[in-house]
Amino acid sequence: MQNFDFYNPTRIIFGRGQTNRVGEVTKAYGKRVLLLYGRGSVKRIGLFEKVVRSLRQAGVGWIEYGGVRSNPVLGFARKAIDLFRREKLDAIVAVGGGSVIDTAKTVAAGVLYEGDAWDFFCNKAEVEKAVPVIVVLTLAASGSEMNGGGVITNEKTQQKLHLVGEPLFPKASILDPVNTYTAPIDHSMYGAVDAIMHVLEGYFNATDPATPLQDRFVEGLVKTVMENAKIIFYKPNDYEARANIMWCAALALNGLMVSGVAAEGFPMHMIEHSLSALYDIPHGAGLAIVAPSWMRYKSKSDPEKFAQFAKRVFNASDGSMQEKAAKGINSLEKWFLSIGVPVRLSDVDIPASDIKKIAENARMTAKLWGLTGYTVEIIEKILKKAA
Amino acid sequence: MQNFDFYNPTRIIFGRGQTNRVGEVTKAYGKRVLLLYGRGSVKRIGLFEKVVRSLRQAGVGWIEYGGVRSNPVLGFARKAIDLFRREKLDAIVAVGGGSVIDTAKTVAAGVLYEGDAWDFFCNKAEVEKAVPVIVVLTLAASGSEMNGGGVITNEKTQQKLHLVGEPLFPKASILDPVNTYTAPIDHSMYGAVDAIMHVLEGYFNATDPATPLQDRFVEGLVKTVMENAKIIFYKPNDYEARANIMWCAALALNGLMVSGVAAEGFPMHMIEHSLSALYDIPHGAGLAIVAPSWMRYKSKSDPEKFAQFAKRVFNASDGSMQEKAAKGINSLEKWFLSIGVPVRLSDVDIPASDIKKIAENARMTAKLWGLTGYTVEIIEKILKKAA
Repeated sequence: MQNFDFYNPTRIIFGRGQTNRVGEVTKAYGKRVLLLYGRGSVKRIGLFEKVVRSLRQAGVGWIEYGGVRSNPVLGFARKAIDLFRREKLDAIVAVGGGSVIDTAKTVAAGVLYEGDAWDFFCNKAEVEKAVPVIVVLTLAASGSEMNGGGVITNEKTQQKLHLVGEPLFPKASILDPVNTYTAPIDHSMYGAVDAIMHVLEGYFNATDPATPLQDRFVEGLVKTVMENAKIIFYKPNDYEARANIMWCAALALNGLMVSGVAAEGFPMHMIEHSLSALYDIPHGAGLAIVAPSWMRYKSKSDPEKFAQFAKRVFNASDGSMQEKAAKGINSLEKWFLSIGVPVRLSDVDIPASDIKKIAENARMTAKLWGLTGYTVEIIEKILKKAA
Repeated sequence: MQNFDFYNPTRIIFGRGQTNRVGEVTKAYGKRVLLLYGRGSVKRIGLFEKVVRSLRQAGVGWIEYGGVRSNPVLGFARKAIDLFRREKLDAIVAVGGGSVIDTAKTVAAGVLYEGDAWDFFCNKAEVEKAVPVIVVLTLAASGSEMNGGGVITNEKTQQKLHLVGEPLFPKASILDPVNTYTAPIDHSMYGAVDAIMHVLEGYFNATDPATPLQDRFVEGLVKTVMENAKIIFYKPNDYEARANIMWCAALALNGLMVSGVAAEGFPMHMIEHSLSALYDIPHGAGLAIVAPSWMRYKSKSDPEKFAQFAKRVFNASDGSMQEKAAKGINSLEKWFLSIGVPVRLSDVDIPASDIKKIAENARMTAKLWGLTGYTVEIIEKILKKAA
């Protein structure tokens, strides 16, 4: 096991009916908050009304700011920063999925920083402080509800990058599985893919081969997500399935799964970010396209962990190590297809002729991802397998 | 899954050489600290000197207070509270295993409380505040390094009880596997048993049958502890094995494994505490004695989870559910024996004629454990199986 620091101070408030606690929780952090949300679905399902009722009962005031889109953009966050400062607010309540939470984090750091918030994403500035963020989650996917990171697209430069910092951990995140019932099925499935890919990045990119506990946690989490996504696919209002996926997604990227494994980076995410930055496809869809191809590329030279994955998750016990590895990757790809998720660029109408452009976009961010070994040629090679 | 709150703000600093960070970490919490330790082994192995060197370099002063014994007692903690107050200290650095950490927590809460610290253990007072505790761990066992609980024996009343509270989470815990190399092998094995029993209490006492992720985490953790304890048994200085056990033990009782399972209590711990309170045997030894008998009692009426455990941890796939359950329990007992741990009262010279007295002592604490269903008769029945 490699040396590591683990720190995760987010309070998770999990379960049915917990939305009613948002007022009481928020009160500890401020009297007036920015109430951030997405495209209005939280109003249609009555969640917004529940949140403001709870805030009102706790004596917390709010300024409403809706309109965060999926693949959230820097321009929107900048406007929210202006609003937060103008109104002299104390904290942010983010009601939504990863896009809303990541925007909230960008705002939370941005309002206390003199320069432009994009500096955090380009490693020009560190997040030294941030105003408190409280989350009411509506989609199990990004894990942003329980970590100190966030992702934003700069719509001018077409770069999708991430910021990170301890002050960005949400103070509290309310995870009521019922709040995810009305998430569209396709996005629920992309969320399941996202959770799986978060843990598999660390698993397959580990530089330390001796992390048996972390391996078993990852394998158990992947199996649990797979079983429960399939239930949701047919029965979106299954409480237990929604609950299991919700807790899996939060734990998938909260630091625990990568503790001690010294992952050499998140290459599938790096390549995917270029897909969603350039074509605005859902992140989970992009991951399902990149993953099998990247795994085939990576397992060529390094099949051992892939064979372990195949054996433990898909019971593949026959054949050589390479054959087992291939079986595991094929099984995962088949599972993606079984829940209606695209696995090829052509499935989302990205032409093979764009591959060079995508690879160049990804290469531009490779240094920030700590993945300078990924040349344009290598990224092209991987994407060609996904054409 | 049942509703739950999860909150764990302890910073874990894991790995080789990390002891040198204790000064820098402690500095954030105070200028003069109580430096608490056990019976002096930390001096013999040079760890004490490393800690004070780091404190000195960071400009942190200390008052040394050694002598915490295993199965730590209230009287010692009271003296430490007096010393802390007299010297007007700021924080506590606990160098040791669970006994030292639990004493540190008792002191940390006690110094800011007007009444007697025992009140926290009898539910007469809640821990509303505590001075900061920083840990340098020397034994993988109790998990106290990453939770807000602690256990102390009141030597007057012969009661071994626990206190709990959010202010008691250590601010930081330094987990350097090398610091556990010199722990005696028997105590290292008791520690492994302790970690396993912490997760199995929640697993076998869960009232919610639908927690697949938590189940898999527990099963993975038990397998990892078993494999690595066996390595340490023959090769005490194996870094990877010590590291794996150390991280397992910390995660075993940090709240994660029981999130959403709504365990109805920790009955094996309740009964064991009476053994170590009355006979001063190591906690892990007492658990290995109580566990198989309790499991045989419990699985009679409720074999399903035991059968799952047998199948997933010991590959027991043949026979009826009762037969599988029995195989799993037998396998665990055999494993205890294989690492030299006692599994019967007679192994530690406790006569069967004492069973009634032990049961009465345990029954006295049943209400505090939330286990009022455990009558003297039931506890006797379980202990008779362990005679």
